[in-house]
Amino acid sequence: MQYDPRTFRGLAFHDARPAFVEGRDTPRGFLERCLEVIAAREPVVRALAATDIEGGRAAADASAERWRVGRPLSPIDGMPVGIKDLLETRTMPTQMGCQAYQGHFPKRDNAAVAALREAGAVVLAKTVTSELGGAHPGPTTNPFDPARTPGGSSSGSAAAVAAGMLPAAIGSQVGGSIIRPAGFCGNIALKPSKGAINRGERQTSSQSVHGVHANSIEDMWLVAAEIAGRAGGDPGHPGLAGPADPPAAARPIRLAAIEGAGWPLLDHAAKEAFGRLLESVEAAGVTVLRPAEAPALAALDAELKRASAICYAIIGWENRWLHRALADMGPDAISFRARQSLDAAEAMTVADFREALAGREAAQAAWARALEVVDGALMLSCPGPAHIWAGDRPGEPPMARPTGDAVFNTPSSILFAPTVSMPLMAVGGLPVGAQVMGAPGADARMAGFARWLLEAVEPVVID
Amino acid sequence: MQYDPRTFRGLAFHDARPAFVEGRDTPRGFLERCLEVIAAREPVVRALAATDIEGGRAAADASAERWRVGRPLSPIDGMPVGIKDLLETRTMPTQMGCQAYQGHFPKRDNAAVAALREAGAVVLAKTVTSELGGAHPGPTTNPFDPARTPGGSSSGSAAAVAAGMLPAAIGSQVGGSIIRPAGFCGNIALKPSKGAINRGERQTSSQSVHGVHANSIEDMWLVAAEIAGRAGGDPGHPGLAGPADPPAAARPIRLAAIEGAGWPLLDHAAKEAFGRLLESVEAAGVTVLRPAEAPALAALDAELKRASAICYAIIGWENRWLHRALADMGPDAISFRARQSLDAAEAMTVADFREALAGREAAQAAWARALEVVDGALMLSCPGPAHIWAGDRPGEPPMARPTGDAVFNTPSSILFAPTVSMPLMAVGGLPVGAQVMGAPGADARMAGFARWLLEAVEPVVID
Repeated sequence: MQYDPRTFRGLAFHDARPAFVEGRDTPRGFLERCLEVIAAREPVVRALAATDIEGGRAAADASAERWRVGRPLSPIDGMPVGIKDLLETRTMPTQMGCQAYQGHFPKRDNAAVAALREAGAVVLAKTVTSELGGAHPGPTTNPFDPARTPGGSSSGSAAAVAAGMLPAAIGSQVGGSIIRPAGFCGNIALKPSKGAINRGERQTSSQSVHGVHANSIEDMWLVAAEIAGRAGGDPGHPGLAGPADPPAAARPIRLAAIEGAGWPLLDHAAKEAFGRLLESVEAAGVTVLRPAEAPALAALDAELKRASAICYAIIGWENRWLHRALADMGPDAISFRARQSLDAAEAMTVADFREALAGREAAQAAWARALEVVDGALMLSCPGPAHIWAGDRPGEPPMARPTGDAVFNTPSSILFAPTVSMPLMAVGGLPVGAQVMGAPGADARMAGFARWLLEAVEPVVID
Repeated sequence: MQYDPRTFRGLAFHDARPAFVEGRDTPRGFLERCLEVIAAREPVVRALAATDIEGGRAAADASAERWRVGRPLSPIDGMPVGIKDLLETRTMPTQMGCQAYQGHFPKRDNAAVAALREAGAVVLAKTVTSELGGAHPGPTTNPFDPARTPGGSSSGSAAAVAAGMLPAAIGSQVGGSIIRPAGFCGNIALKPSKGAINRGERQTSSQSVHGVHANSIEDMWLVAAEIAGRAGGDPGHPGLAGPADPPAAARPIRLAAIEGAGWPLLDHAAKEAFGRLLESVEAAGVTVLRPAEAPALAALDAELKRASAICYAIIGWENRWLHRALADMGPDAISFRARQSLDAAEAMTVADFREALAGREAAQAAWARALEVVDGALMLSCPGPAHIWAGDRPGEPPMARPTGDAVFNTPSSILFAPTVSMPLMAVGGLPVGAQVMGAPGADARMAGFARWLLEAVEPVVID
């Protein structure tokens, strides 16, 4: 299946709403069409860790009745959604792609899931996560080429949305777990500002966030806003700022073009795609500034060279007590990749952690200064198109990052910055996302920029 | 047993260390003496939710061998400690004083507990907590009068330390759960700055902290510093600032005297005790400023009138998803007091939560301005001596807060401020604590102030 961002139309719920209002369609009908796509594609895509079809049908029927009488609970009433298998769900197990959690079924909803149900959404499926949100992959394949990775760790959320199984799915990012799979799968996706969407009891990381994969800015924003409107932000955070309705398209005046530490990983085609995208953005009337053109951007670029090192140090340290407990459950309780990460984390001292925190603060300060010069930054969402991944093979050295390198994503993670991935490129018939990243709290502004970029800029296609 | 702070000497580990060095005593000997006290007093005090005597003896023997060869792991190597039953321990169940958690045994150590073991401490017991750290009490009685409450929610930690069962115990505070029981039980206790001691996966509250109950400033500080030196602060926080060694006594220049919103709850004797304490502090050379004497203090005093309302709104909202899940487990899964709190929390909207957060920020700003005028604040730790509590009785209206009102504690909780409780008063033969509260991050400075106050100020005794 050759992917072309100029013609690809993903499944959107937003499009269907007028038909619910007018009685020409129902959420149950919408759900049944999703189930047909799931039946057709799931055997190869393998995006779903669990489903609740009976519960989903009951919820869709209840929603249909609310639409019939003109009393939907929210604009996403009846929307089938997938939930990354790191978040607790009352109706399905939460196994986190990890042997240690096989059969784990906490019978409760994460705050974000509870909010989705309160808004009338149909919580249909758990989506595959790489193990514990880390490097060890699950079974999901890329919907546009089953030999390739969908990215991770929100592998199933990105793939299910790309395959048209679901109009939206919840992902989470601590390093690169929303934006990279969104980039590899051609999603529109929001990795919000830190704290914007309540993670409930999932607070062990100081930088992880819950976010949204979708096929339209409208669905993406409404899901985020409806959750935050009911469950608020993380403990101590006021939550997502911005309107309840999807922000209007807005043209940025000046954007920084950040090639970033990942640039050397790219092949010629991916570099050319990004270069042509920048030309298109400039042609559409946006001033695009390279780091060499402003000292504040050069300083930011230099700080971000360390983003991945800082990011992995913080993640490793903050996970180490939980992961030690899992590792102690048995030799196969966590993967060899998770054990490698744990070993590295347990070799750290408090001083190492404090140094990483100081590095994160320095990068945030550099970002604040850069934002005096630009309205946001444009970056690739992922290191080119998804690579081939055929699984670990006995006797062969394992690939360190089978779901891809997070080098284009660790910046937004350590900056606590909102960023929106947009399907604006294709290379070799595969999606390559670009992201627009802004100031912490400027989630709505980035959604408006992304909406404008998707409308105003011709996507780049390179064979 | 009449309590007199002028003569009472609680069990301290710090005192015993020289004897370990010189071979006159061993951690095993120290432990056995603790076990004798436990055997004598636990039947009435009921401070312990679980014990690991066999594991404790093995750990004490290993520690004794390290002291024998002159290689202790830390200054608290061999110290028997209690762990509030909210924190996970590998060797004992974690039942949180809650029916829903009966038999809960996660077989893992909280980050703070892991750090204590790494420092060589003897993790001997779980200490009773009021249910889920809330208002519903456990079975613990006040060591100085079994008809009275020990305070809560760190009831068992405060009581075990006061009774001489243990030289130190870990408590936690989100509203008033360290400092109030410390005040009712005559402990020396640190409620640290927010984030100072890693709570591991216990991160659902935006203002709770882990702290230390002890009978000496030295033990209190060393336990906090040895934990933070190994497990650091909360995710994203650098952790406890200050020296590894206990801070030297330091005389504050100016302290604010805050009567606070709890003043009207006090009887004449408690008011007189605090008034005389302020006179003693002034007599010792500290300038004591009342709110009326400085506009910044008057403004602070006014902000803190709302501290309890702000505090309970934030706690309720942040707990609501977890507590809903527990409530759904069955009609007796949580107490009627916890259900009342949950009902109030579920009646809140995101706007209510945001308003409480804004109130917390306003109070913090007022505290920052007050700290331009004073070095810290002196307040009561608790509303006078512990009250009588004989349990809920069928047919009688239940006492709303059987472990006492947190009105003197919610200020430090919402201010994220470090505070140290000191056993500086007795009323009617019962302890009444005073606390010295400082700027966030000034934990060591407050420990030094407390040390000086304990040394320089004659305790107040009122019959």
